[in-house]
Amino acid sequence: MKDIAINENYVRLGKVRSVIRDLFEYGNAVRAREGADKVFDFSLGNPCVPPPEELNAVLRELIETCDPVTLHGYTSAQGAENVRRAVADYINSNFGDNVTADTVYMTCGAAAAIVITLCALCNPGDEVITFSPCFPEYGVFAGQAGAKLVAVPAKEGTFAPDIDALQNALGAKTKAVLINSPNIPAGVVYSEEEVSRLCAALRAHSQKLGRPVWLVSDEPYRELVYGDTKVPYAMNFYDDSIVCYSFSKSLSVPGERIGYVAVNRRAAREEDVYAAVCGAGRALGYVCAPSLFQQAAARLLGKTSDVSVYAANRDRLADILRGCGFEAVTPRGAFYLFVKSPEPSAAAFSERAKSYGLLLVPGDGFGCKGYVRIAYCVSPQTVERSAPAFAALAKSYGLPRI
Amino acid sequence: MKDIAINENYVRLGKVRSVIRDLFEYGNAVRAREGADKVFDFSLGNPCVPPPEELNAVLRELIETCDPVTLHGYTSAQGAENVRRAVADYINSNFGDNVTADTVYMTCGAAAAIVITLCALCNPGDEVITFSPCFPEYGVFAGQAGAKLVAVPAKEGTFAPDIDALQNALGAKTKAVLINSPNIPAGVVYSEEEVSRLCAALRAHSQKLGRPVWLVSDEPYRELVYGDTKVPYAMNFYDDSIVCYSFSKSLSVPGERIGYVAVNRRAAREEDVYAAVCGAGRALGYVCAPSLFQQAAARLLGKTSDVSVYAANRDRLADILRGCGFEAVTPRGAFYLFVKSPEPSAAAFSERAKSYGLLLVPGDGFGCKGYVRIAYCVSPQTVERSAPAFAALAKSYGLPRI
Repeated sequence: MKDIAINENYVRLGKVRSVIRDLFEYGNAVRAREGADKVFDFSLGNPCVPPPEELNAVLRELIETCDPVTLHGYTSAQGAENVRRAVADYINSNFGDNVTADTVYMTCGAAAAIVITLCALCNPGDEVITFSPCFPEYGVFAGQAGAKLVAVPAKEGTFAPDIDALQNALGAKTKAVLINSPNIPAGVVYSEEEVSRLCAALRAHSQKLGRPVWLVSDEPYRELVYGDTKVPYAMNFYDDSIVCYSFSKSLSVPGERIGYVAVNRRAAREEDVYAAVCGAGRALGYVCAPSLFQQAAARLLGKTSDVSVYAANRDRLADILRGCGFEAVTPRGAFYLFVKSPEPSAAAFSERAKSYGLLLVPGDGFGCKGYVRIAYCVSPQTVERSAPAFAALAKSYGLPRI
Repeated sequence: MKDIAINENYVRLGKVRSVIRDLFEYGNAVRAREGADKVFDFSLGNPCVPPPEELNAVLRELIETCDPVTLHGYTSAQGAENVRRAVADYINSNFGDNVTADTVYMTCGAAAAIVITLCALCNPGDEVITFSPCFPEYGVFAGQAGAKLVAVPAKEGTFAPDIDALQNALGAKTKAVLINSPNIPAGVVYSEEEVSRLCAALRAHSQKLGRPVWLVSDEPYRELVYGDTKVPYAMNFYDDSIVCYSFSKSLSVPGERIGYVAVNRRAAREEDVYAAVCGAGRALGYVCAPSLFQQAAARLLGKTSDVSVYAANRDRLADILRGCGFEAVTPRGAFYLFVKSPEPSAAAFSERAKSYGLLLVPGDGFGCKGYVRIAYCVSPQTVERSAPAFAALAKSYGLPRI
């Protein structure tokens, strides 16, 4: 029995050690051995702020007042009608009249939303363009759809989208452009002008190709923005657009797997695109999104966890880092800081940081060398207590204190 | 913009009208127009029996006593460790020492479990054999894995698995055999002897090919059996086996999307197969199964809804049908009766039944012509009230009353 062929591609995918997971487990080991105060774990993007107060009340009410057979029963494959209507009403009253209940498809979180959307749009050989640094799984999801992910580097230093570079990357095989604002791992929020320019480029290229280049907007961090930052709504700028959303970060419920795909009702072949979303969902085994959390999410639209905790962490951590001489762009959204490594190898920097108890993720996995990602969705106490460790780390590199 | 190519395969899949859904919607329309007592809806396999009493208590306890950040946070991709351990312990104490926490992968229900498993095992061009009649989505799921579903007809009349026919169908391309006991749509439960013979055939063929032919056992109806019926545990009969399970039917929570894949710890390349399951889950966007219901399911292992309601429905309905002259095999499990159509076209029979208010699903979609499926997961009152309608329908065909 030598030739026991299973799907080796999936074996490989399942065996790849995640750098993030490795750091997290290292942290657990140190915590167990030396105490929780010996490690400052900035590795995971798991929200630390509890869900909004209302969540428990909503869950209790649903459990206590609804017929359990209906509450826990199958909804239609695309999601319960009342839930899709609530989501559509919320989008239309807050962002623009872009969707209907019949262009919204409830999903098991944003990962499902992106895989389903890319499968619906792509055929083998297609290309999907994104800006790097980006979420590492984009490549895996595009691959599942038979497409190739083409990463266009964002602008050095600011990580703003480089629209000129995007224009150069658009080609005959480009099926879609996948954007993420607020962005993993740099916390960049695209401005209205940037989105406008990007959409103008897509429009021109679509014209040239004689078919739409789709804009897919992955926006699980939409509500996690700071100061007076506004996140432009992609659908208002471009008809052939699809939004992938998750309630994971806004409601701090990433484990509950609830999100949606929303197709712009003005998109080309809108009905067919929505049908393809339904068809892809069906083939991938996403029969209906979890029913209790469909109903809970519909009742909590617009509510968020206490974002001010992340805002305070961001400000304090940016101060700490700059004070010790590190270079970092202050993020306008999400809960990540992307910090320049003081030596060429981010892996070596991350390794040295570990010896100070600091768990920082090398940026290579996000498609950007020479940086580390700091996930500051931690307690304010962890941020505060980490200051001497960052100072010592900076000193070990001889960085100038400011 | 003529050539607006999206994925036409998924467009088609998303647009296919479901016969079951059509019947269900027809029923809703009649109910609205003429009253709920004018229609006997046996179309949908949605459990009518409420979840076990304990479910609400468990959900309340989890919501009220657990840290919400942990309870609703990401678990590891394969599921929370305590949940996988509980599932493994349950399987091992009830069926045999076949799994460990590290061979169990929590999924969003059985659909996800099957897609993930077939993707993990198959490569393009592979064949997956099943017995027909079968769950219509098997073909879609195999297609997603790049494989072709080969349906071997079960024995005419009894719908028992035809092992001789299976042996003839086993070939060079056979990657796996997918069984479902208790079975949709006929309620057949495979006997120990049948499973033994089937596994002997797989063993011989594996030997011949020099690689394992995998046995995938889809068993969401395991607990829904009647009288002293026992459901043999596939893993006890064959090492290269994988069980796909869902809590949807046992706990009456089909909308909550909670189930698992369990890989036999004695399987060839067991670690790689489990890695492939993890890799497929990752690529398909199944990051972690819904976290609240992971914990709830772990606390309710072995509990079921009140199966006696289905048992009573089965007995009464079998009496009613046979009394009017219909031919039906009494199911030993699940909540479906597969009834012979008194005319060659099951679609025509289903159409005529509608005029008596009876919604019965033609069996063609299950891969078996000349039968209809009756889902008796309805209230006992519906069964009782349907008796005159069945009698009138039978009379219209001139069937002999018994």
